[in-house]
Amino acid sequence: MRSMTTRVRRTDPDFSPIRFEEGVLHLLDQRRLPTEERWLALDTVDQVARAITDLVVRGAPAIGITAAFGAAIAARQRGDDISAWRLDLERLDRSRPTAVNLAWATARMRRKAETTGRLDVGALEAEARAIHAEDVSANRAMAEAGSALLDAGSGILTHCNTGALATGGIGTALGVIVAGYQAGRVDRIFADETRPWLQGSRLTAWELARQGIPFKVVVEGAAAALMSSGQVQWVVTGADRIAANGDVANKIGTCSLAVIARHFNVRFMVVAPSSTVDPYMATGEGIAIEQRDPSEIWHAAGLDQPPGGFDAWNPVFDVTPAGLIDCIVTEHGVHRPPYDFSN
Amino acid sequence: MRSMTTRVRRTDPDFSPIRFEEGVLHLLDQRRLPTEERWLALDTVDQVARAITDLVVRGAPAIGITAAFGAAIAARQRGDDISAWRLDLERLDRSRPTAVNLAWATARMRRKAETTGRLDVGALEAEARAIHAEDVSANRAMAEAGSALLDAGSGILTHCNTGALATGGIGTALGVIVAGYQAGRVDRIFADETRPWLQGSRLTAWELARQGIPFKVVVEGAAAALMSSGQVQWVVTGADRIAANGDVANKIGTCSLAVIARHFNVRFMVVAPSSTVDPYMATGEGIAIEQRDPSEIWHAAGLDQPPGGFDAWNPVFDVTPAGLIDCIVTEHGVHRPPYDFSN
Repeated sequence: MRSMTTRVRRTDPDFSPIRFEEGVLHLLDQRRLPTEERWLALDTVDQVARAITDLVVRGAPAIGITAAFGAAIAARQRGDDISAWRLDLERLDRSRPTAVNLAWATARMRRKAETTGRLDVGALEAEARAIHAEDVSANRAMAEAGSALLDAGSGILTHCNTGALATGGIGTALGVIVAGYQAGRVDRIFADETRPWLQGSRLTAWELARQGIPFKVVVEGAAAALMSSGQVQWVVTGADRIAANGDVANKIGTCSLAVIARHFNVRFMVVAPSSTVDPYMATGEGIAIEQRDPSEIWHAAGLDQPPGGFDAWNPVFDVTPAGLIDCIVTEHGVHRPPYDFSN
Repeated sequence: MRSMTTRVRRTDPDFSPIRFEEGVLHLLDQRRLPTEERWLALDTVDQVARAITDLVVRGAPAIGITAAFGAAIAARQRGDDISAWRLDLERLDRSRPTAVNLAWATARMRRKAETTGRLDVGALEAEARAIHAEDVSANRAMAEAGSALLDAGSGILTHCNTGALATGGIGTALGVIVAGYQAGRVDRIFADETRPWLQGSRLTAWELARQGIPFKVVVEGAAAALMSSGQVQWVVTGADRIAANGDVANKIGTCSLAVIARHFNVRFMVVAPSSTVDPYMATGEGIAIEQRDPSEIWHAAGLDQPPGGFDAWNPVFDVTPAGLIDCIVTEHGVHRPPYDFSN
């Protein structure tokens, strides 16, 4: 695995943290942003799976695209051994448990291999590129549909990172927000810093600053003060998995925002491509929630060592009940309650 | 100003971060906890005011006690010049804007000087020691009254730091929680890490670990997931200022917890000495909320430099409406809605 440090061009509208060139997957290492823009070059499926687990790449759509390219890389490694390739895809499936886009992408790669009956590297690479390209189109469609819902003069609070870094294109929730800003309908953008991994203060801030769009970072605790102040009309977030009834698994803190938004009559929009929908999951109760190590909490707090006896409860996602969500925007349009994604 | 590093004894029940000896105020520097236990020795009112502004000491009751000792130190500096001393007290009053305990303590010191008609250093030192001793007693009374409200098997979520580090004695909210744990009624303690200053993961964790009491730190965003999981029956917090109608100003994030608690039928208790009540403030709307520098957000995130264009909205306190608070515990007992602290 090679790595190199480059400067991402400030206003490149087609910027993507995922590039696939001559059988090698290049990922912008999101653990090092915003202080360093370092690219990793991956050419084994093991490297790809580890990059997903270790958060080199994160964001449900971006994880799906990465896994698709991982499956293409695995095909090149395995030659004719389709059984070994299938085990590789199971390894990719296990690399993160909550985002359904990952399993959705590997399922598509499996179907592609079945239609050709063998590991056709060219066909599998083309399928992974198609998954990436479709996400770019889906992002554009969602940005258009979602931003049309915003009234002029709106203030928006968003959570985690849902921009180019989390997707294949301009983003899901952040795509809606940026499109709304560019259309003159969004006056104020607030971004949760998003503990413990600080996707907001590190990644969303980096993306908005790169595009010259003004924003303010807030701590998660500020949500009630912010919403009661009248500065925010919409909370707009992404999703990691959407159940058939519209329950949404997303970054820890999302459900807290939805509860607070409802209390202060602020509207709540979820933006996610249809690959995030899990029609076989009836409700959010069945969704596996990834628990990560307590060290993420004390280490991100700048502590090299935790104090003796230090422990943490560190689920990375929560489930927001459909009843707290005013609309769910996919590339197919705006869905409103009662939701039914069962087919 | 001298400083020295010592080890606080692990289970000292009379531990206080504030010690006054021979005209010198010794403060445990809370900015450096938990990695270093360093004491500062202050012998000018200017040093004391700066220590309050710079968060060497924090927590509304502890700020009040510190300001009282600062007024005693100022009397020793000023000799007979009571006008200069009054300016010193105004400087102390301005050192932090939100906690009313500060103005309450300096008002008491002013009244003491008026009764003697001159700057009697011995009498003013005795008054400051009395303010400290009364806070110790008030802490014990609140711990008893508040912990009696907890049912056996309770889980508690707390916010910020409200223990010995924030007060003169065993603490306000944390005093209730520890007393409940020692009485066998509290089975689970969760502490918000409390961004941006991390009073929970740095200070509350340090205090509980010191006493050998098990706890789990959570990010603020986890509140809804935690409360919906059934692991928490009470949210217990302190206060920086309580308006006559029971509205409570406290660390940013408190109002968010109160909204989420109400949604999930979790009860909400505020614990604060009566010196925190501001009977002249009719409602929370009039309370001045301190805004701190955006650098607290990006610096605490481990960034040496913010990315270009980085901005933040960083109020340090919020106001929780009285209607979301199930009870307010002071040293005088348990207050329930409708609250009336107007006299």
